[in-house]
Amino acid sequence: MDLENLLPAIDKIEKSVSAGRTAEAIETFLELHLADQAEVFNLLAEEAQGALLKNLDIPSTADLFDELEDAETLEFADDLSIARLADVLDEMEPDEAADLLGDLPPEVATQALAEMEDPEDVLPLLGFPDETAGGRMTTSFIALRRQTTVEQAIRFLRNVGPESDVPYYLFVVDREKRLSGIVGLRDLVIAEPNIRIENIMRPDVFFVTTETDQEEAARTMARYDLSALPVVDDQRRLVGVITGDDLIDVLEEEATEDIYRLSNVTDTGLEPESGVWDQIKGRLPWLYLSMVTSLFAAFVISRFEYVIAQVAVLAVFQSVVAGLGGNAVTQNMAMTVRALALGKIAPKRAWPIILRQALIGLMMGIAIGVVVGIGAYLWRGNAYLGVILGLALVGNLAVAGVAGTLIPLGLKSLGQDPALASAVLVTTVTDSMGFLLFLGMATYFLGYLT
Amino acid sequence: MDLENLLPAIDKIEKSVSAGRTAEAIETFLELHLADQAEVFNLLAEEAQGALLKNLDIPSTADLFDELEDAETLEFADDLSIARLADVLDEMEPDEAADLLGDLPPEVATQALAEMEDPEDVLPLLGFPDETAGGRMTTSFIALRRQTTVEQAIRFLRNVGPESDVPYYLFVVDREKRLSGIVGLRDLVIAEPNIRIENIMRPDVFFVTTETDQEEAARTMARYDLSALPVVDDQRRLVGVITGDDLIDVLEEEATEDIYRLSNVTDTGLEPESGVWDQIKGRLPWLYLSMVTSLFAAFVISRFEYVIAQVAVLAVFQSVVAGLGGNAVTQNMAMTVRALALGKIAPKRAWPIILRQALIGLMMGIAIGVVVGIGAYLWRGNAYLGVILGLALVGNLAVAGVAGTLIPLGLKSLGQDPALASAVLVTTVTDSMGFLLFLGMATYFLGYLT
Repeated sequence: MDLENLLPAIDKIEKSVSAGRTAEAIETFLELHLADQAEVFNLLAEEAQGALLKNLDIPSTADLFDELEDAETLEFADDLSIARLADVLDEMEPDEAADLLGDLPPEVATQALAEMEDPEDVLPLLGFPDETAGGRMTTSFIALRRQTTVEQAIRFLRNVGPESDVPYYLFVVDREKRLSGIVGLRDLVIAEPNIRIENIMRPDVFFVTTETDQEEAARTMARYDLSALPVVDDQRRLVGVITGDDLIDVLEEEATEDIYRLSNVTDTGLEPESGVWDQIKGRLPWLYLSMVTSLFAAFVISRFEYVIAQVAVLAVFQSVVAGLGGNAVTQNMAMTVRALALGKIAPKRAWPIILRQALIGLMMGIAIGVVVGIGAYLWRGNAYLGVILGLALVGNLAVAGVAGTLIPLGLKSLGQDPALASAVLVTTVTDSMGFLLFLGMATYFLGYLT
Repeated sequence: MDLENLLPAIDKIEKSVSAGRTAEAIETFLELHLADQAEVFNLLAEEAQGALLKNLDIPSTADLFDELEDAETLEFADDLSIARLADVLDEMEPDEAADLLGDLPPEVATQALAEMEDPEDVLPLLGFPDETAGGRMTTSFIALRRQTTVEQAIRFLRNVGPESDVPYYLFVVDREKRLSGIVGLRDLVIAEPNIRIENIMRPDVFFVTTETDQEEAARTMARYDLSALPVVDDQRRLVGVITGDDLIDVLEEEATEDIYRLSNVTDTGLEPESGVWDQIKGRLPWLYLSMVTSLFAAFVISRFEYVIAQVAVLAVFQSVVAGLGGNAVTQNMAMTVRALALGKIAPKRAWPIILRQALIGLMMGIAIGVVVGIGAYLWRGNAYLGVILGLALVGNLAVAGVAGTLIPLGLKSLGQDPALASAVLVTTVTDSMGFLLFLGMATYFLGYLT
């Protein structure tokens, strides 16, 4: 449902709470789909949030916490008593509960764990950082032994009805709990009842270890169209499964991260409606960095101040050279960062790519430089100005092609995030180089410009 | 597998082909996972590509074509005879085959369709544009009637073994083939054999129509954690299903599109290794647009040329004001575009958001303006210069906050893609406004600057 369509529900809940009709508010809230509940909850006034949190039953609170972003869950968990928090943690999905426990102040987490009824599902997950496969995986899956028959497996599913976040796959393990294969439910349904699981399982299974980075795990799932990815420990024992909805979450986080880094926003949790102070914290440091780099470019210009004093028109066109270089380098950076994110560039083939981008920059520089040069000539009547402007553009766009490709590839090969080559850093190159080329040539041909 | 790890296979295949050992090349190729085959094929030298295409069996060619991007499939399909092409189309997934037929020259498509053995799967898909749910869906799914019993359904799966791209869901339709519910395979397995499907199905099913935009369909799947989304026609008859791997593809395409549009790259199919001419076609038009807008900013400066001739230091700092405004507006734009893409902003609440961003811009402007102003004063020894520079930054960053939020939101409410508010357009605002504020104030206080 579109956010727009949720506004009436928000309105109704807030009015019910204001009028003291909490039961009515709860009813309206619970009629919403789970994913919408989280969205609506976030947008409610504080008073309404408090009223819902106090009166929602435990399972609904757990569902809500599962859906909310980690930072939001933490904020609202603060308002619960330890006893209630422990009950909610018991009902939450193990991986989400582990994330929350990891985010809580240690003494609160310890108390809550002590009060939980079955902390066994959560405990093994506590050691894994959020951003690893171990931190993402669910422990709620179904594992069978190799020797189980199809009939036994179906009876197990029917009678025990084990909980699973991965209902359409059964994982097959050996005596030592090591992953040995996977059976899709469809294969189970169509198999002869007395055949053994090991005879219908697919033995060549993709898997990752608990330490694998979540992005790498997601990339494997996306690449090979996997809707569930087993996670094993260092003994190859099956300890968890990453599910399709985790995959989506990771891919979206990753895309947001790339977009934000390219645009100089550090904190990927930021939205236009985030708190003023949070936004300033996530943006201002980049602007200070940008200030330093733009002062560097300003310093380059200051070396030519005496030239500009004689030919003020240079100040008019210097920004054109820098700006077009900046736009071209942004194009290069976006393509390179995205290709690296999607695993489409092998670093070994970097140099031919950089050469190709230099050539493209040169060609686009000629295409742009000729037009701008002739335009400047027609506007100001000075052919030298046009030629210098055109040549500076050719040079700067070639530099843009190299810098916008080389910098992200270089960061990648240094093990850094290539998207850190954000606009701030690469446009410094094109700014400074643009000013240097244009004003430098102007100085050399000063006699023809005055 | 990482691209890096595929290079040995590429090497081996190319060597085998050069040495005339085609069978060996084919063997190496077919040992790769399907997703890797597509990647490797793309990177092979043309000679090796030709040799593989000529000698691969039909099903393997179909698998390869299913995996390749649409434009690539089209290129390689060109090399096949009509008879062979028809055989490959028969084996391809219906939605991919339909995409290819739609991309082929009409006379080739007609001939191929005529030679196909069972065009029935593909024909109904031909009418739907690629980017709609109809263009994305597969027709290979299993539909059951409401009155079917669980036992009958299992027997049907076991004996008929129908093909399905959605093996873990059964879709339930009524007498008129209208969608009435969905049954997960797990529910089927654990149900009593003689119960009717309509009694175990979930009746409240999310669905879209064939005309729904693929992004909206993907957004629904991501939001509600659906791994399959039924597609119905205007009579609510079930005609197809969108699967989880389509969802991933759409989300990745969408993220690429946002990144590229924000960075002024039109063609989302471009990669750093794409053909030189293709890249120029996808990038140069934006640079020409950027040229026009930067000439507009240059025109603003030219109005102040006589001032710059007297106080050349203005040329040094004008770029600082414009550049920092550009960086700030990029941050705003990225956050707004991403929030809109993820459905996190309701347009009705636009004005409070714009006000908030104006406030944040103002505050960051003060934080930056004070530092730059004092810096300029210390560097050049003119307090007026520092004050003017500081004030221009405050004004420009506040403008950036408004422009970077208002422009994408405005485009969205006009039904346009908000990411079209690319860097080129919004930085024109901050460039021109920055020059106007800074040089305008400098003109007013000219007496104190010389």
